Amino acid sequence: MRVCIVGCGSIGSLFAAHLAQVEDVEVWAYDVVAAHVEAINENGLKLTGHADLLARVQARTDPSEIPPCEFGIVATKSMFTGSAIEAVAHVFEHGAVASVQNGVGNEEAIAERVGRVIRGTTFPAGHIVSPGVVNMDTSGDTWVGPFEPKPATMDEVSRLAGAITAGGMNTIALEDARGAQWTKLIFNAATNPIGALTGLTHGRVCELSETRRLVTVLVNEGKAVADALGITLDSDPDALVDHAAEVAYEHRASMLQDVLAGRATEVDALNGGIVRFGAEQSVPTPMNEAIVALIKGVEYSWQQPR
Amino acid sequence: MRVCIVGCGSIGSLFAAHLAQVEDVEVWAYDVVAAHVEAINENGLKLTGHADLLARVQARTDPSEIPPCEFGIVATKSMFTGSAIEAVAHVFEHGAVASVQNGVGNEEAIAERVGRVIRGTTFPAGHIVSPGVVNMDTSGDTWVGPFEPKPATMDEVSRLAGAITAGGMNTIALEDARGAQWTKLIFNAATNPIGALTGLTHGRVCELSETRRLVTVLVNEGKAVADALGITLDSDPDALVDHAAEVAYEHRASMLQDVLAGRATEVDALNGGIVRFGAEQSVPTPMNEAIVALIKGVEYSWQQPR
Repeated sequence: MRVCIVGCGSIGSLFAAHLAQVEDVEVWAYDVVAAHVEAINENGLKLTGHADLLARVQARTDPSEIPPCEFGIVATKSMFTGSAIEAVAHVFEHGAVASVQNGVGNEEAIAERVGRVIRGTTFPAGHIVSPGVVNMDTSGDTWVGPFEPKPATMDEVSRLAGAITAGGMNTIALEDARGAQWTKLIFNAATNPIGALTGLTHGRVCELSETRRLVTVLVNEGKAVADALGITLDSDPDALVDHAAEVAYEHRASMLQDVLAGRATEVDALNGGIVRFGAEQSVPTPMNEAIVALIKGVEYSWQQPR
Repeated sequence: MRVCIVGCGSIGSLFAAHLAQVEDVEVWAYDVVAAHVEAINENGLKLTGHADLLARVQARTDPSEIPPCEFGIVATKSMFTGSAIEAVAHVFEHGAVASVQNGVGNEEAIAERVGRVIRGTTFPAGHIVSPGVVNMDTSGDTWVGPFEPKPATMDEVSRLAGAITAGGMNTIALEDARGAQWTKLIFNAATNPIGALTGLTHGRVCELSETRRLVTVLVNEGKAVADALGITLDSDPDALVDHAAEVAYEHRASMLQDVLAGRATEVDALNGGIVRFGAEQSVPTPMNEAIVALIKGVEYSWQQPR
């Protein structure tokens, strides 16, 4: 089996390195960061933290050097899905491509260029320590299933899940992976931007009654949209919020990290995704819309005034 | 006529210095900042910028040293109204006390300690340059009227307005000053916190379509509450927002200045006031509630984690 990781940053590297542990799996990676790509080719891809691996991965910045692959796993930030899949689409002429990215809308963008698509959601997180070295910060499950409008076969979904699991990251193949995806989406959309706008860790967002109530308002809008879409959530996102306050009190949301670093956020794939699907289903989502506006305002404040 | 300014910071100093220009008006001031009080007593109160005045004002940090006054003008930040009026209430045993503060709820707090109260709204702004010296940043009108539950007489309102106008700050006496107050309240509550949360100047809040739309959502909630209270606004706050984008593009909202300085904001008297009056009138104000939550979250982020 030949797999290409599209976007081999912190998340992509976790999948690349684990898959490369499996006999008969050949791992390629496409990324635009030349230093990271060169380090991977010269010294291998190294994982630290929750994993301790050194993996043989063929990394490329030039997509024309990548051979045809049976599977793709897209792991770019959500705002780069379209440009990344456009660059590597030829690799997957006969393959199936999964998204393991944040938010919603990524599978739709992949399906514009690729014939068979796999919906995916992953919990593990990491960060790049130095070129070629990624720390696995948290472990957890991954869920995959056929993307309904342009589905990969269940056989393909199961083979990919089996390979990732064999590599050491437990991955569950589902007929309908929307419940897992929307549970994580709603959780992230209700908590990430509150952290980003206030500077609070997850635990402190939850212990201040005003912000905790706002999280619930956002969760409820997301649940209403999921309900209109006929999606059965894996668990109640509001209960996950309280659980996370206990186990990840000090966690700074990735969107807070983006804001502190002056980097574009994934708000369009998170709250923006809930707003778009809400509009399609005629479910009002004014609070998610307000959150999009405020985060866009923060991003706008980094641009030079005209 | 003897007048006591309660809270002689940037706004209070504008009123104190202008009133002191009027023959037969004796101006006292109560403030907790000893350096400012001492400088006023030693060198007089000096205004620069839009005014050029040196005024004789009797300033005190000890309220027991202030003689009975016919009029009071409260100009503290709104969160200090209660403690300030409690400290000086004895001065106004036979007097009438006006608020010229931001937001709503100040007159209610004053009325808990004082018999006759004047509702007020002022546009001029300033900042303290050094102890005893205040720069008048902008000029503009002031509106005063009897506070309905514990009203000063129209004669008192007119006499106070006349004295302030004679001193050089145009002040309009109204039977019902709620329209002026709520117009400014709705404008401030819809724009100040967006600037504070995003870091954008007023003009840039207005040129980004997402944040501009959010301003209108907040304005509309405020208008619905004013409507339920039977208040006729002076003008459409949404039109004022666009006007201000032209004439005050570079303006950083006072709440943004508070946030940048790590100072408590006046959100409770602005959006919090709209929420409280909305609840009384059974008018939903979810977006103002969300804004209160986010600003409280920002303030909470300055505290040491527990």
